[in-house]
Amino acid sequence: MSGIFKWRGKMIKIGYMGPKGTFSHEATLKYIKGKESEYALYEYSTIADVILAVENNLVDEAVAPIENSLEGAVNITLDTLAMDANIKIKDEIVLGIKQNLLVKSGTRPDEIECIISHPQPIGQCIKYIHLKYPNATVRFSDSTTAAAQEVAGCNGRIAAIGSMIAAKIYGLEVLEEGIQDSNNNMTRFAVISHTDSARTGNDKTSIVFSTEDKPGSLYRILDIFNLWDINMTRIESRPAKNELGRYIFFIDILGHKDDEDLKNALTMVGRKTSFMKFLGSYPVFVDREDI
Amino acid sequence: MSGIFKWRGKMIKIGYMGPKGTFSHEATLKYIKGKESEYALYEYSTIADVILAVENNLVDEAVAPIENSLEGAVNITLDTLAMDANIKIKDEIVLGIKQNLLVKSGTRPDEIECIISHPQPIGQCIKYIHLKYPNATVRFSDSTTAAAQEVAGCNGRIAAIGSMIAAKIYGLEVLEEGIQDSNNNMTRFAVISHTDSARTGNDKTSIVFSTEDKPGSLYRILDIFNLWDINMTRIESRPAKNELGRYIFFIDILGHKDDEDLKNALTMVGRKTSFMKFLGSYPVFVDREDI
Repeated sequence: MSGIFKWRGKMIKIGYMGPKGTFSHEATLKYIKGKESEYALYEYSTIADVILAVENNLVDEAVAPIENSLEGAVNITLDTLAMDANIKIKDEIVLGIKQNLLVKSGTRPDEIECIISHPQPIGQCIKYIHLKYPNATVRFSDSTTAAAQEVAGCNGRIAAIGSMIAAKIYGLEVLEEGIQDSNNNMTRFAVISHTDSARTGNDKTSIVFSTEDKPGSLYRILDIFNLWDINMTRIESRPAKNELGRYIFFIDILGHKDDEDLKNALTMVGRKTSFMKFLGSYPVFVDREDI
Repeated sequence: MSGIFKWRGKMIKIGYMGPKGTFSHEATLKYIKGKESEYALYEYSTIADVILAVENNLVDEAVAPIENSLEGAVNITLDTLAMDANIKIKDEIVLGIKQNLLVKSGTRPDEIECIISHPQPIGQCIKYIHLKYPNATVRFSDSTTAAAQEVAGCNGRIAAIGSMIAAKIYGLEVLEEGIQDSNNNMTRFAVISHTDSARTGNDKTSIVFSTEDKPGSLYRILDIFNLWDINMTRIESRPAKNELGRYIFFIDILGHKDDEDLKNALTMVGRKTSFMKFLGSYPVFVDREDI
């Protein structure tokens, strides 16, 4: 029935880091696929703004990149999650990242003097750039679509690295498709909201904590998960920002906060840490397109 | 006697990420302080190039930033250390980072329309920018000195964020000193060479490894250090780059590879990991200026 009738309930406001054509935009479209009529999309210009929009009730949900399989953690997302009090992770989305070389229509490869993009896609195509455009200068932009916009308005000597959706939106020619150095290029996005998700039986839980300033204190936390046979799928350290050599840790574990063992383990972690924040339990991502 | 006679031995070639005026330059000057006549400085344009210059025997030593107390790990340094076979960490330097707002002489604060710098110093001054220059656009440059150079050649509406040494080199006016949001802003640099350092009794050892793809495999490695009463001062994860959700881990532990216990622990870590690389033992940094 869905798709026949227009959604008549209250629209769910969802924020992402724009402009249109970013991989965040693509991830958001993937997340709401099949339920497009229930969502109203809101564009923000930075990752921090997207997340704060949830905290400030400007949107109901927000999509923010959390880690890339090649570049690693997205620090601004982690730092904002650690700081802001009233937000939870309610879902995750994994997106395969394909980068492309975009130019103004008619530009030939030998005319390209400068390649611009966000530092992350530049990093993902660094071998390609070295090999194919060793003499081009590389310049950083605020986003892949800012780069595409600049190319759209330029004299033809500049190329942008960006998504196919960006090429379409800004009327650019795709000079070469799939120029990323590795095909294992995936980004994991978190869907952020005021509440997390109910138990499905295949869930993940995220927490952030700082340990006491004593030798072996991180080991003692991991020991708790070991004791309860809880699998950790990820550990990420970020600076505590008060002193060099002090860190906070982001940990993902398998299970839901309503699982008895996980609940007990988290109670114990809370006692053995100087700060702990529960970031949410949510379903492990399963790609519907792959099924 | 040193300082009276000119050094007549073979000069030690040391590389850093230039141009002159970067914090890497400042750290290098701090490292060779009192032994300036023994060193010849070589400038490289990227961190990867600096480290590869050691691997390729173009320099004897190289100084590369490894972590900042606010921004976290310097990923390119970690990734290059993990990949390159014949390099070791032989020393570390900690530098307090002070950022400054640099303009062309005579520029007034109300004339500034754009602030440029490397993404890291921008991140370190983000509150200051929001508060004092809410209407200025922010643009990323490849380095703080590239930003200073651009300001030196501009029409006066652009400000750069950079070091005092950059202001001096490029003839810029320091409009405001110490604009970093936090005074806990320190960067740790690694001195990279073909060999690490001899035991001093107050040493640190760095390794990088990947665990087997089994639950609890990271815990089992930390358990080895716990067994031998070895203190871990840092753990940093980076993506393994072959699959989302697979990581390599950089660990710093207190002690030297010639300490019996540490040697035994590392032997065991080597057996329980799918890949392990010894990155070096070196003296724990003690700031000579603070003594």
